[in-house]
Parts: sequence; C-alpha cells; structure tokens
Amino acid sequence: MADKAQVQEAIKTQGEVVRKLKSEKASKEQIDEEVAKLLQLKAQLGGDEGKHAFVLKTAKGTRDYNPKQMAIREKVFNIIISCFKRHGAETIDTPVFELKETLTGKYGEDSKLIYDLKDQGGELLSLRYDLTVPFARYLAMHKITNIKRYHIAKVYRRDNPAMTRGRYREFYQCDFDIAGQYDAMIPDAECLKIVYEILSELDLGEFRIKVNDRRILDGMFAVCGVPDEKFRTICSTVDKLDKMAWEDVKKEMVNEKGLSEEIADRIGEYVSMQGGKDLAERLLQDPKLSQSKQACAGLTDMKQLFSYLELFQVTDKVVFDLSLARGLDYYTGVIYEAVLSQTVPAPVSTPTEQNGADEAGVSVGSVAGGGRYDGLVGMFDPKGRKVPCVGVSMGIERIFSILETKAELSSEKVRTTETQVLVASAQKNLLEERLKLTTELWNAGIKAEVLYKKNPKLLSQLQHCEETGIPLVAILGEQELKDGVVKLRNVASREEVDVPRADLVDEVKKRTL
Amino acid sequence: MADKAQVQEAIKTQGEVVRKLKSEKASKEQIDEEVAKLLQLKAQLGGDEGKHAFVLKTAKGTRDYNPKQMAIREKVFNIIISCFKRHGAETIDTPVFELKETLTGKYGEDSKLIYDLKDQGGELLSLRYDLTVPFARYLAMHKITNIKRYHIAKVYRRDNPAMTRGRYREFYQCDFDIAGQYDAMIPDAECLKIVYEILSELDLGEFRIKVNDRRILDGMFAVCGVPDEKFRTICSTVDKLDKMAWEDVKKEMVNEKGLSEEIADRIGEYVSMQGGKDLAERLLQDPKLSQSKQACAGLTDMKQLFSYLELFQVTDKVVFDLSLARGLDYYTGVIYEAVLSQTVPAPVSTPTEQNGADEAGVSVGSVAGGGRYDGLVGMFDPKGRKVPCVGVSMGIERIFSILETKAELSSEKVRTTETQVLVASAQKNLLEERLKLTTELWNAGIKAEVLYKKNPKLLSQLQHCEETGIPLVAILGEQELKDGVVKLRNVASREEVDVPRADLVDEVKKRTL
Repeated sequence: MADKAQVQEAIKTQGEVVRKLKSEKASKEQIDEEVAKLLQLKAQLGGDEGKHAFVLKTAKGTRDYNPKQMAIREKVFNIIISCFKRHGAETIDTPVFELKETLTGKYGEDSKLIYDLKDQGGELLSLRYDLTVPFARYLAMHKITNIKRYHIAKVYRRDNPAMTRGRYREFYQCDFDIAGQYDAMIPDAECLKIVYEILSELDLGEFRIKVNDRRILDGMFAVCGVPDEKFRTICSTVDKLDKMAWEDVKKEMVNEKGLSEEIADRIGEYVSMQGGKDLAERLLQDPKLSQSKQACAGLTDMKQLFSYLELFQVTDKVVFDLSLARGLDYYTGVIYEAVLSQTVPAPVSTPTEQNGADEAGVSVGSVAGGGRYDGLVGMFDPKGRKVPCVGVSMGIERIFSILETKAELSSEKVRTTETQVLVASAQKNLLEERLKLTTELWNAGIKAEVLYKKNPKLLSQLQHCEETGIPLVAILGEQELKDGVVKLRNVASREEVDVPRADLVDEVKKRTL
Repeated sequence: MADKAQVQEAIKTQGEVVRKLKSEKASKEQIDEEVAKLLQLKAQLGGDEGKHAFVLKTAKGTRDYNPKQMAIREKVFNIIISCFKRHGAETIDTPVFELKETLTGKYGEDSKLIYDLKDQGGELLSLRYDLTVPFARYLAMHKITNIKRYHIAKVYRRDNPAMTRGRYREFYQCDFDIAGQYDAMIPDAECLKIVYEILSELDLGEFRIKVNDRRILDGMFAVCGVPDEKFRTICSTVDKLDKMAWEDVKKEMVNEKGLSEEIADRIGEYVSMQGGKDLAERLLQDPKLSQSKQACAGLTDMKQLFSYLELFQVTDKVVFDLSLARGLDYYTGVIYEAVLSQTVPAPVSTPTEQNGADEAGVSVGSVAGGGRYDGLVGMFDPKGRKVPCVGVSMGIERIFSILETKAELSSEKVRTTETQVLVASAQKNLLEERLKLTTELWNAGIKAEVLYKKNPKLLSQLQHCEETGIPLVAILGEQELKDGVVKLRNVASREEVDVPRADLVDEVKKRTL
C-alpha cells in the first residue's frame, strides 16, 4: 500500500488535472475518466475522505452481462459452434495474456491499443488483442502444421468506446481458422461458406460479404505509382472507404500521405470496382494491372475462389470489391468482410451502458472479417518455417446488440432458467415434504426449484413461476400426502390434475418436452 | 518503445541478476524466469542481438488447451452446467478486470497475489482474483437483492505454480451462489447438494465434504482465550491442518503467532473433532463452548443444516469438521470444502506443462469450496445495505487433470471433432463433385468434411477418418455419379453399400445417431 503522504500528493495533482480539463471544456468522457481516477485515489486513503468516494462501476469500456443477455449470448454461441462443428473443427484455448513480445510488431498502428500488465517482478505481459496472433504462436510453439480449429474467447483493446459505437474494450471473438498446406482457395472458400451459414442462421436480415486480395491491392498500388514504402499506409486510407466518401479519402492520400493527385485518381478508378468472377476475368485483361505479377496471382486465385463459392451455393451474397483493404498487417492473400445491410434500432440503454450507443438508428456495419495470413506463424518459428493459414473472425458483440434490441422490442419473454417444475405447498409446515419431493425430482434429472422459505404463500410461489416462466407446479398438501399423489398445475392454463407420486417424473418429462 | 541505451543498460543489470542467482544455486524455476526476462529485454533491441532470443512460450503459470483437453473440458462443463440448471440457476458474466479498489481489502493476506494492469493513463485496474467479489460488486451495482446464478470463468492469481502442484496462475472457477434473504440453512444445504451431485456425476472416486462455521470457529477461539485481534491470523494457521500435522500447527501458533501453549492445546482439542448432527448437539452442551453466543448460533444452524442434508440424501459424504477454517476474509457463517480421497497418478507431461506436477502420485485435495458471506455486498453498497449470500466454487483445474490422466491411461480414444462423414473419391478430377456433395450435406445439417486437395489418395482420406474417428465415408466415383448413388463406407467394419444420392442424408443420420 502506498504511503499516505504520497497518495495525498497524488490527489492534489489529480485534482488539478480535473480542474484544468473542466476549464478547458474537455469532453464529458475525458473528465469522467479523470474524476474516477481522483475518486480511486481518495478511496486509497481508506479514512473518511475516501469513504464516500467509492466508485461502483465496471472498468471503462466493459460491461456486465445479465441473465437475459446471457440467454441470448448462449443462443448465438450455440448457432456458431454448431456451424463450426458441422465443418469438422476442433477447438483450443490459450491464456488471456501473452508475453508482451509475442504481440509486438503484429498489429501495425493498432499496437498502441494493447493492454499491458504491470511489471510486478516477472515476465512482461499483455492482454491478447485478437485470437489470431495467439493461434499462430500456438502453432509454432507446439509445432503443428495443420489443424482446423475454432476459438471463442474475449479479447482486449484500449479503444475509445464512446467514439466507436457499439464497441467495447473487452469483447468476444469467434474465430475459425484452417492451417496447413492445401490446394489453393479450397479452405478460403470454406471460410466464406461458414460466414454465409452463420449470418443466414442468425436471421439478421440482408448481408453482403466483400472479398479482395492483398496481392491485388499491392499490385494495384504498384501500377498506379504508389512508392513501395507507402503501400501499408495507403492501404489503411483505402480501408476508410466504407465510412468516408471517396473525396475525403483522396484528400487524406494527397494531403496527409503525400501522393500526387494523379496517382490518387488512378487508385480511385480501381477501388470503385465491384463484381464477381467476371470482374476478376476482366481485370486479368486490364493493360496496367496485368503488368503486375502479384495482381495476376491474386486475380487468378479470385477466379478460382468464385468457382468454389458457386459449388458452395453462396455467390448471391459475395462481392469482389476492390475497395476492401482491412487494417491488420499480417494478411498476405485473400481478405473478406461481412456487412449487414439493415440499420438496426438503437438499443434501449441499461444502467450498465454508461458509454454511448444511444443515438437512433445505428448502422451496424462489419460483423465478420478475415483473410489469409501465410507469414504469421513463420514470425514465431525459430527457423522461420511457414504454416499457411486462412481464417475468419465473427464480431459477436454487434450481433448480440442486434438480437438484444430485437428481444426488447418483441413481446416474447426471454427465459433465463430452464426449470421445469416448482415444488410448492398451500399449507404450512410442509418444508420437509417439499425438500423431499424436490430431491426425488433432482435425482431423476428433472430441473426443479423450491422456494427457500419455511412457509411461503401459494400466491408467491405461483408468482415466481409467472415471473421466471416455469411451466409446471407440483403442489403438496396434507391430503395429497395421504393419498400418495401430487397436484400438478399447468401455470399458463391453470389446469390441475392429481398425479400418483410414482408417475410424477414421467409426467413432468412428458409435459416439458 | 524504450530508448536503446536504456534497454542495453537494463540488459546489463539483468545479466548480473542471472549470474548472481546461478552462483547462489537458486531454483531452476527462479533462474528460468530471470533468464526469460533477460531474453525479452534483448528482443526489445530488435537487431541481431535480439533476433535469436525470441522466447516461444506462454506466460509463467499458464497453459494452452489442446483439442483433446478441450474435449474433456467440454464434458466436465456440460455436467456442471446441467447440474446448475437442474437447480434453477441463471448465469451472468462480468469483465475479466475490475477497478483495483473493487478488489482491495477483500482477500486478506492473499491480496499480494492480485495481477494489476499497467497504468496506461486511465483507471487503475486488476484482473479478477475470484468470481465472488465481482458477483458482490454486480449485486450492489445493479441493486439486485435476490438471484440464484452460476458463473464459469477464468480467474488470476500470481501464485507460485511450481510450489503448489497442479495449480495455475490462470484457472477456471465454476461458481454457484444464492443471494437473498431466506430462511436459515436452506440455500446453504442446496449448495452442498450441488457439490455432492457434481462430484458423484464426474466419477472421481470417493470424496468427503467438510463443513464448519466461522461463528463456531470464532466462538471456539474466544472460549479458548485467543485475543480478538488474533482470530483471523489463527484461523489461517488452523487452515493448514489439512497439510500439516497438529504439532507443526501448534508450533506456528505459539512461536509465530504468540499464543500460549495452554491456549493452543485447548484449540487442539476442539479442532480434532469430527462428526455429524450428533457432534453439533454434543457441542451445544459443551460447558465452555456453550458460553459463546456466536458458537451456539453456529451450532444450532449446523444441526438445522444436517437435517436438510438428510432430506437431500447427502449425509453419507458430509462431515462436520472443526478443523476446517478456509483462508478468505469474507466468510461469515457456514463454510465447506470438498476433498477427493484418492491419490491420482501423475499426469504425463506435455510440452506445454513446463512447470512442475511431474512427481508420482499427487494428492489432489480440495476440489470445491465455499460458504456464507453475508457482509460482502454491503461493502459495495453506498448505503451499506446487506444482501445475504451463500455459494460454492468448483476447482475445475484439478478435476481436469484427473480426467486427462484417466483419458491418457485408458485405451479409449478421445474424439476432438463430431464429424459424421468424410466426402471422398478414389479417382482424380472429382474435387468439384466432392464439394457439391459436401455442400448438400452441410445444408442438410450433417457434419461433414472434405480434404482440401484436388486429387487426394483414397488411402490418405481413409487414414484421416481413422485418425480423427470419423465413422463414415461417402465415396464418389465416375460410376457412382452415373448411377446417381454414393458408396457409403463404414470405417470400422469396412463394409460398403451403395446409397441413392437422395437418401444419403437420412442414411448418414440413421447410422450416426
């Protein structure tokens, strides 16, 4: 624990930071953050000064999931996992943190968003930023040269959650990847088939899957006259085309990235192109682009990809789009991104969601993305041995938001338990009998509840069923005990029937199939 | 990135640390850790010096889960979650990190094991140490006064994984808790019923559940003459009785904690007692212990607890054991811990497990623990409103180890995928036909795979089935295509039968029920 005088000094300094921000009319977000820091310092004092300063919140950019949200999450995961299993995938898990150096140099400009752990005398650690780099580390470390695996876990990014709506600093990724030396574009096509199946089954409305290839982009930059060293940064600028108009993207290229207007205009012509297999064929004849070996390799593979996509029956949603760039450094071939067409209504904000997302009609945008990264595993292998990989990552949080909003707007109640029957009594002093019957049900595998009161009112027992959606009540009374029966009540219809105690398990099973 | 000269300076210093440890013959563990730090520093230089110093490993005390381990993990989780759902529990989730102050002052001496995040200009954060404190924070923050919830997630402790065998720094907890104002001991008894059900169903051999009560311990300390301010620290010492002989525990009480021999001996008499309801009844008549109001309250509740446990049919495994203390500060009433009786064979070590656990015959010890903590939520509520809580946490990693070892020793192969059928061909140039048929199967919900090769050999296709346990192969050839059939082969029996293509889905379903 820090020295008291030190803490008091820190409180003073922090107080000045807050005052300065307020006087400068900084954003509410920024001020709140600094105030929270101040309150935390005060709390460290532990005395009266700190007592009322306790901040009852989750960390910035994170949230709790309540049981309703968890029920929706479980449903989404079940659909996704079923699809991954249908395609023969295994699953693995890796630790939430990695050695800091494992993540170093993999994310380009985004590296600044990585969470580091405090040096508490040991290794330098960072929270994982995605599941792809840990996967590559896993392959290299365990010397695995081929695997088809999925991995569902949380990743961490110190993004500004208020600025990027619907985004959190802690969020789930659902990744499916195929590692191994295979014939071109077959695994790549399967990844797209998977995105297609999942988005169809989740019933999120219309969607499109944009496809491009890093080699086509690089070839295009080369024939347009972009200097080699600017490929990556121009790529980042092109990536903004889904949020910015071409005119603004061009401005950034010329004013910030130092391209000539002429070069930018040449790029502009290409990145406006969209199509399918036909476009790939046409561009293979393009007098400029066909000069680039790289572009030709990419275009030939793109043709091949589309022919497999036809066999997989998914071409109705897939578009070859030359403006798709994707930010991450590690892609080497095909890249893709799925976007929803619909604009979803804004979620009803709960007390948990202190940050943003309260504007009407948020466009959800990208819900899946991925591509080929043939060089990443080699970065980890001591001998630089490469393992070709292609994969896709589902952006699950956005899908959760949509389905949560849907659930809120619908009249259907989301159940958060699976309880089949409540064991109840109308009379006093029957707690022991209720517990005995509940035990019988549990031991037979029936999902059963009993209220933790000695003498609960029948009404409050029935209310508990109404509130939580329990469909059946098994009611015990002196008479039922004497007769060796249980009164089984259907909560919705209020019908009651006496069931011999020995038949109760079967009867509950039959009625809650 | 740190300044190069700074890093070089740090490398020099760290080099000396390593040399010193080696000259002092420090533990391999300790030296390895410092060497890893040195290599990381070297890697920061990025130049030739760092190039070959890259450390390919997971963070100390953590491990990857491979597909086989995941298959076992999934099985264990399914059993546990089914049990929680059978008892009507909802589930929630909370972020992996909390504000640092949320965890402050909750774990007593163990607080030093908390992982802090680096201050990167924002809130001060720590990784969660357990799921109980975040649960209490959740209840207070969302003003929830009653809930029955489970939470399965990883927690983080900077323990020394080499010293405490079978323990990791990142590990799963499976928590079940009941919050709310209820009649005494009913929810407490249900928690024990749950431990009983899960340990029975996991089939881990004999086990016992020890039960005690903090009020009984405190009352006992008081009547033995322990000064109030030493209750907690003596409690910690008593907690060591499962690993140390009484003589050594007594020594610690007298020499380190400053109790008189006489007081220690009085404690020694009590903590050797074990029994059931009868012991609680006897102690209620104990001339000394009955002087303590606290002890009497605890003993009366213990009697009540056992009467509910009889109704739940679990008393054959539950022991009232006065030596059970449990380390954490926040318990206020009943406490319990489940221990396995068997000694399990040492796990066959995999390349991942660099740390320890390679001695033969490791005693697994505690696999579940919990108790009542009525004060914890009040520590978070701005007005100090209390929410009584009782819960149990399953120590899943130890259970994983046992089942992993069992699986390794057994001849039965663990399948890591659920694929029902491989689509194959014996002839060349049938890739398109294979992809078409696979699409038909996927679209019908069949779990199907196809090799990503244009012309794979039939033998390698069959081998893939043998290796991964796929039971069926659907073989396509020119003749089959002409006849509109598929040759369906049973991998185990090698039987083959021609199935009309239109019937294939049903046939696969029928054979893989």
